[in-house]
Amino acid sequence: MTGENTGWYQRGGLALLTDLYELTMMAGHWKEGRGEQRVAFDYFFRSLPPHAGFAVSAGLGPFLDYLERLRFTDEDIAYLRGLETFDGDFLRYLRDFRPRFTVRAMPEGTLAFPFEPVVQVEGTIMETQLIETALLNLLNYPTLIATKAARVCLAADGDPVMEFGLRRAHGPDGGLTGSRAAYIGGCTASSNVLAGKVYGIPVAGTHAHSWVMSYPSELEAFRAFARHFPERCILLVDTYDTENSGVPNAIRVFREMREQGVSVRPAIRLDSGDLARLSKIAHRMMLAAGLEDPLIVASNDLDEDLIADLKRQGAKINAWGVGTHLITSRECPSLNGVYKLVAVYDDGRWVPRMKISSNIEKATDPGRKGLYRCYGEDGHPIGDLMCFAEEPSPQPGNLFGRVRGQPHQRARLKGVVRSEPILQTVFEEGDRKVGTPPITRIRAYVGEQIRAYPEEFKRMRNPEVYNVLLSERIGALKDGMLTNPELA
Amino acid sequence: MTGENTGWYQRGGLALLTDLYELTMMAGHWKEGRGEQRVAFDYFFRSLPPHAGFAVSAGLGPFLDYLERLRFTDEDIAYLRGLETFDGDFLRYLRDFRPRFTVRAMPEGTLAFPFEPVVQVEGTIMETQLIETALLNLLNYPTLIATKAARVCLAADGDPVMEFGLRRAHGPDGGLTGSRAAYIGGCTASSNVLAGKVYGIPVAGTHAHSWVMSYPSELEAFRAFARHFPERCILLVDTYDTENSGVPNAIRVFREMREQGVSVRPAIRLDSGDLARLSKIAHRMMLAAGLEDPLIVASNDLDEDLIADLKRQGAKINAWGVGTHLITSRECPSLNGVYKLVAVYDDGRWVPRMKISSNIEKATDPGRKGLYRCYGEDGHPIGDLMCFAEEPSPQPGNLFGRVRGQPHQRARLKGVVRSEPILQTVFEEGDRKVGTPPITRIRAYVGEQIRAYPEEFKRMRNPEVYNVLLSERIGALKDGMLTNPELA
Repeated sequence: MTGENTGWYQRGGLALLTDLYELTMMAGHWKEGRGEQRVAFDYFFRSLPPHAGFAVSAGLGPFLDYLERLRFTDEDIAYLRGLETFDGDFLRYLRDFRPRFTVRAMPEGTLAFPFEPVVQVEGTIMETQLIETALLNLLNYPTLIATKAARVCLAADGDPVMEFGLRRAHGPDGGLTGSRAAYIGGCTASSNVLAGKVYGIPVAGTHAHSWVMSYPSELEAFRAFARHFPERCILLVDTYDTENSGVPNAIRVFREMREQGVSVRPAIRLDSGDLARLSKIAHRMMLAAGLEDPLIVASNDLDEDLIADLKRQGAKINAWGVGTHLITSRECPSLNGVYKLVAVYDDGRWVPRMKISSNIEKATDPGRKGLYRCYGEDGHPIGDLMCFAEEPSPQPGNLFGRVRGQPHQRARLKGVVRSEPILQTVFEEGDRKVGTPPITRIRAYVGEQIRAYPEEFKRMRNPEVYNVLLSERIGALKDGMLTNPELA
Repeated sequence: MTGENTGWYQRGGLALLTDLYELTMMAGHWKEGRGEQRVAFDYFFRSLPPHAGFAVSAGLGPFLDYLERLRFTDEDIAYLRGLETFDGDFLRYLRDFRPRFTVRAMPEGTLAFPFEPVVQVEGTIMETQLIETALLNLLNYPTLIATKAARVCLAADGDPVMEFGLRRAHGPDGGLTGSRAAYIGGCTASSNVLAGKVYGIPVAGTHAHSWVMSYPSELEAFRAFARHFPERCILLVDTYDTENSGVPNAIRVFREMREQGVSVRPAIRLDSGDLARLSKIAHRMMLAAGLEDPLIVASNDLDEDLIADLKRQGAKINAWGVGTHLITSRECPSLNGVYKLVAVYDDGRWVPRMKISSNIEKATDPGRKGLYRCYGEDGHPIGDLMCFAEEPSPQPGNLFGRVRGQPHQRARLKGVVRSEPILQTVFEEGDRKVGTPPITRIRAYVGEQIRAYPEEFKRMRNPEVYNVLLSERIGALKDGMLTNPELA
């Protein structure tokens, strides 16, 4: 199966999108004759972005596209030869390399929580090592941005949010990948036309100050824009003086349109000044001029906190343009996702492994896993269970397990009514099993889940911590390994 | 002329890397029959990243590659048609669109200061508008990262700095573009193999904890690595216990190598724990074991402040691996670069324009500009002069001008011995005039400039503010426009 159109850049050329040490270790394993050793790695993140109650996992589709096209080109091999680090036999092996992964993953857009396996990769130690960097690159950033977008949309409380971040994004792909993730997280549109073309995201925009400045007067600029784009007519009113020039001129133009029989929703954009005060003034002036239900778009260094604050102050804004802070996740521009060995295949069976750490919270959770989302009586999710892949699905009732960070301690989920497995097989022995769903469907799936979660996980500050339990079996094993590190 | 090999992604497919409103305004100008109006735009940034005394301009080469290949493909046109916003005539115009820009710019790697024109674009209002977003996207992020890298390297005080950021970068291009910029800013190598291939950047790396964990013992893991990569042998010593296991095992392996007649510099990497304390212990143990001049690499959430602090504490670290904080410019993940109209061509001559703002500091500087770097008696740069493009170059002696943010106020540069023009013509009427220099040359140029600047601009905190004057003529015009806004 093939994925969505990833268009302008060739995922086929990404075999070298990796840290040098991955190739070095791969070569080392190969030369030691132990490269075929099968192992399992988990991709997970250790903490949510600041103030977030959940993360929106994103990037799986593009990651699977990458896996599907993972080949070393002759050019790649020639480059590696030039490094004088790898011998000819190994380079010949790379040239013929075909991945044979089995991958299980949360469907893209699934809400995820710290330490849960978002993606689990099984394969030879060589191939699982090779893809580490690309996997992290292709999943960390989209998940960060989809999560940020979901928070911005929660703050906007149902108002449309447009993503305007391309000019401050980290290169073309930062923009393209970011626009895709922002849409998945709940934005209604992007200004990024390439993202529209490549991913089918709705595109939106208004005009810039330069449009107004290129005309002898603001009024003429507005009239020209309205003449040519009556259906996309959002007038930017702050080039000279919002209150005394921009809004009165916009009102005049919308009334003229109405007189000419053009029926459009009157719409303005505010991009500077006190957005709360100016939006109220503009709203009042527009209503007084007989322009009902105006669309008032705000932009200018917005983020979820400022949007929530403006709402609290009764700003008459009903659409939001969010750029820099969204596309760069300004206060936290990286997600701490990692990829850790959790099991090795030995003597016909999978043996759980864990990485001990002096900080017990950072110790990994051993084993190939199943993950279940558990729902309570009211239909809300009440917690997740991480168990071994081979454990049966949890039964309704009270669910007993262990506290992840302190596995000697027992914990429970009370009143589980039903549970759903979250991980699905997306690659099997090198064959892709699942296409990427249409992006609108991924976005809708995110929205459904967010609606299903109780309010306490959606606060802007200090959200409730969602319960993720270890099964009794994983918990007991982990506790034993922590007590006797030589078992790890 | 053509630029460097930008390899894996096709700059030719980037015409739609733009905000929708650029195309909307372009179409509006076209329909109004005023699209051929010639205008000039400046790209500049309003403030330096936090604590920086200068910025390292970067991204020009890839931006010129983009300009050179700027064409709308049939696919692009079909996509735009589907938006039902643009009429057929305009789409036919786009299909045949060939840019005719004239572009003047600082050579890539030039140190730049707030409000200086890093790039100046002249062309029709349509084409200058079209490229705004891509220009900002292709210059803002690289400049941010080259600047960050320069600061990190200043803190490292001559030690090699390796960029390890790919896994936390904003998508593949965030990594690729970021690695290129980090190298330009002074890093010695990158872990990103694709950046090595595409841009010719030296690649470097060690091994991961997973290498050690995949062996029955740390000692066996180290021996295997040393056997296969004697020349790249940097052993990661913190998988289990740095002091009691990692360092002693590494010492044993380096002594064994020496006994076998393999002469390599003993090298270890520390990736956790107290880097100052552990590096001193490791250094002492290695010296005591007869391993002279060991290379001790540190990594783990480093940035310029932490490196400076570790140096202050006498850490025995002599190479640094910097990842997340460098590639995302963590404390400030975006540069506030903007692109503003500065002149319109009217009646056979260029008429300066400016954007007034209620904040006088934010008012733009009118006119097509020349920019001169002025040097004092000791050979150091002492300030820059922004004048009109047609003004003669400044003469030695005391240079008089105006304060940029308060143009009614006079200012001077004392004792100018010589001055150099900074802007060069890189595109003329659509033809590229200048290729991209080899990246090693750009990097060397950055280093030379940084060395030439006095210490006060290179402090980690509160660096001196570098003097950028307006010429008397620009200053007087700006002052007049601020006093009589209708002139702007």
